[in-house]
Amino acid sequence: MKKYKDTSCNLLTLRQTAKFLKKHDNFVILTHAYPDGDTLGAAYALYYGLKEIGKVASVICPDIIPKKYDYFVRKTDHVEKDKATVIAVDVADKRLLGSLEGEFGSAVTLCIDHHISNVGFAESLYLDASASATSEIIFELLSFMKVNINDTTAKALYTGIVTDTGCFKYANVTAKTHIIASKLYEYNIDAVEINRIMFDTKSKKLLELERMVLDTAEYHFDSKCIVLTVTEEMQEKTGCSGPDLEGIAVISRSVEGVLVGVTVKQTDTLEFKISVRTYDPLNASEICNRLGGGGHKGAAGATVKGTLNEVKSQILASVKESLEKIYAGTSSDK
Amino acid sequence: MKKYKDTSCNLLTLRQTAKFLKKHDNFVILTHAYPDGDTLGAAYALYYGLKEIGKVASVICPDIIPKKYDYFVRKTDHVEKDKATVIAVDVADKRLLGSLEGEFGSAVTLCIDHHISNVGFAESLYLDASASATSEIIFELLSFMKVNINDTTAKALYTGIVTDTGCFKYANVTAKTHIIASKLYEYNIDAVEINRIMFDTKSKKLLELERMVLDTAEYHFDSKCIVLTVTEEMQEKTGCSGPDLEGIAVISRSVEGVLVGVTVKQTDTLEFKISVRTYDPLNASEICNRLGGGGHKGAAGATVKGTLNEVKSQILASVKESLEKIYAGTSSDK
Repeated sequence: MKKYKDTSCNLLTLRQTAKFLKKHDNFVILTHAYPDGDTLGAAYALYYGLKEIGKVASVICPDIIPKKYDYFVRKTDHVEKDKATVIAVDVADKRLLGSLEGEFGSAVTLCIDHHISNVGFAESLYLDASASATSEIIFELLSFMKVNINDTTAKALYTGIVTDTGCFKYANVTAKTHIIASKLYEYNIDAVEINRIMFDTKSKKLLELERMVLDTAEYHFDSKCIVLTVTEEMQEKTGCSGPDLEGIAVISRSVEGVLVGVTVKQTDTLEFKISVRTYDPLNASEICNRLGGGGHKGAAGATVKGTLNEVKSQILASVKESLEKIYAGTSSDK
Repeated sequence: MKKYKDTSCNLLTLRQTAKFLKKHDNFVILTHAYPDGDTLGAAYALYYGLKEIGKVASVICPDIIPKKYDYFVRKTDHVEKDKATVIAVDVADKRLLGSLEGEFGSAVTLCIDHHISNVGFAESLYLDASASATSEIIFELLSFMKVNINDTTAKALYTGIVTDTGCFKYANVTAKTHIIASKLYEYNIDAVEINRIMFDTKSKKLLELERMVLDTAEYHFDSKCIVLTVTEEMQEKTGCSGPDLEGIAVISRSVEGVLVGVTVKQTDTLEFKISVRTYDPLNASEICNRLGGGGHKGAAGATVKGTLNEVKSQILASVKESLEKIYAGTSSDK
């Protein structure tokens, strides 16, 4: 059997993956920690598919499943672990199993994934890095196996695809993604409601945080740069933390004419995590490298110690250097 | 020829529409006033299609075309009006031609539209109310005519579809919409960039207005209702008006747990325009009817005279009445 990269992991074809599922009878399906729409959508769609062909299966998630996914999440079977074949979906590394890593990290027989970064931790792997979402792969797998897809399965798959593509906005979308979406529309999926829940619902506390953060907006370098600040006090006052804060960096990048969006988030009295989002020709990674951080061309970060003003001065100095390289002599602060 | 409803307007089939385009040689293509992505996308895609088959055509828009559409908008031909066959795209009523109504209102030979509300003002009409966008219809028309679609045509069509569907989120999306999107992905459309421009770009002044409006957020009736206020002063200070303000009502509807989102917008010293957005089982139209306004179940409006506090009291009283009908005795203000 073909090996994955330089690992001992067997690389399966779609046909071999289908055969594998037909051969076994008792499954445990694992999602990654901090579950998102794709890992859950893929896991439950696979579960419903396996039920259709008479298998026994259980979905196990390392964390509590957010209530917003209730419309496709159901109680699954009880499966005894030592009898079970363990499948991980949308899990690129056993560390991403979080609280389940100890119990299942070395016990995954099959991993189904679309992350090119998959490390090959499972015994076998079906990887399609061209798929926008693992849910796209599960759709193809169930279709290939001619397994009946019901409305709930379709809802789970549609959820996985829209959450991993920002509702068909991201660079991972292909013609195939839209073809699969068109096929899912043949079921009663209530896409309007799914998209409302996934994209157009904001918690009261997040709206309150956004209000506070917008009050801190500063524009620099002829408005080519915006700086937003999230203090510890704001986080405490609103009760927002971690994942809630991801949307703030998105705001910084959405202002017309802004090439560099900077979010300065307090992580301790004298420590700040900086997120930088840039548009061409600016390079976020270059800006953050100067502060000991790193990342990609469009999105990077760094952790900087000091007072808020010191930290802001440092990041602005780095932004200025990058701007000056491109707009030599044309940029002046404020 | 079949007539449209009880008008003298001829209802065409797709085949007849194609034949019509082939028969004539000089076209003026009109968009509606306050042009959006669909009327422009449809108009320019039709223009490019007509050019492919050797026709002379001009796109005329009643208003200045926003710069954000520059990636598919080009200078079109000069066409003498009296020689031209006039086509209106995405125009449901001649009044929607705005500044062009006088000149062209009674001169439209063919209207191509997807609005079920089309009044049949043109001599002939090709209407497909099941299409998510007029651009969806133009794609079908060009495909039916076997006209070459180039990258710019595809960008125009994709823009029309995403803007009229909220990037595949709205209830007008069908399986066909996704099939057409998948076909447009065969061209070099740079969908990521189009979606960034259409959905993830906010003007500095709008961000400033949002900041001010979020400062006014009030929650009522166990947070089932949020009230946002936009004063004349805020509009003057930020320079935001009309279309800029549409997004504010969207915010009011996006807060988790909120069933009634109210936006109170000052239109004069003692006059306010109220926008109400509701979720089931609340009825926005019922709430606004009590104040002399109206609309649909999920979105309605009213114009109310008085001071801001008086107007807020009136709308809250109406919201309370509707809430009490449903949650008898369970709701208490604040």
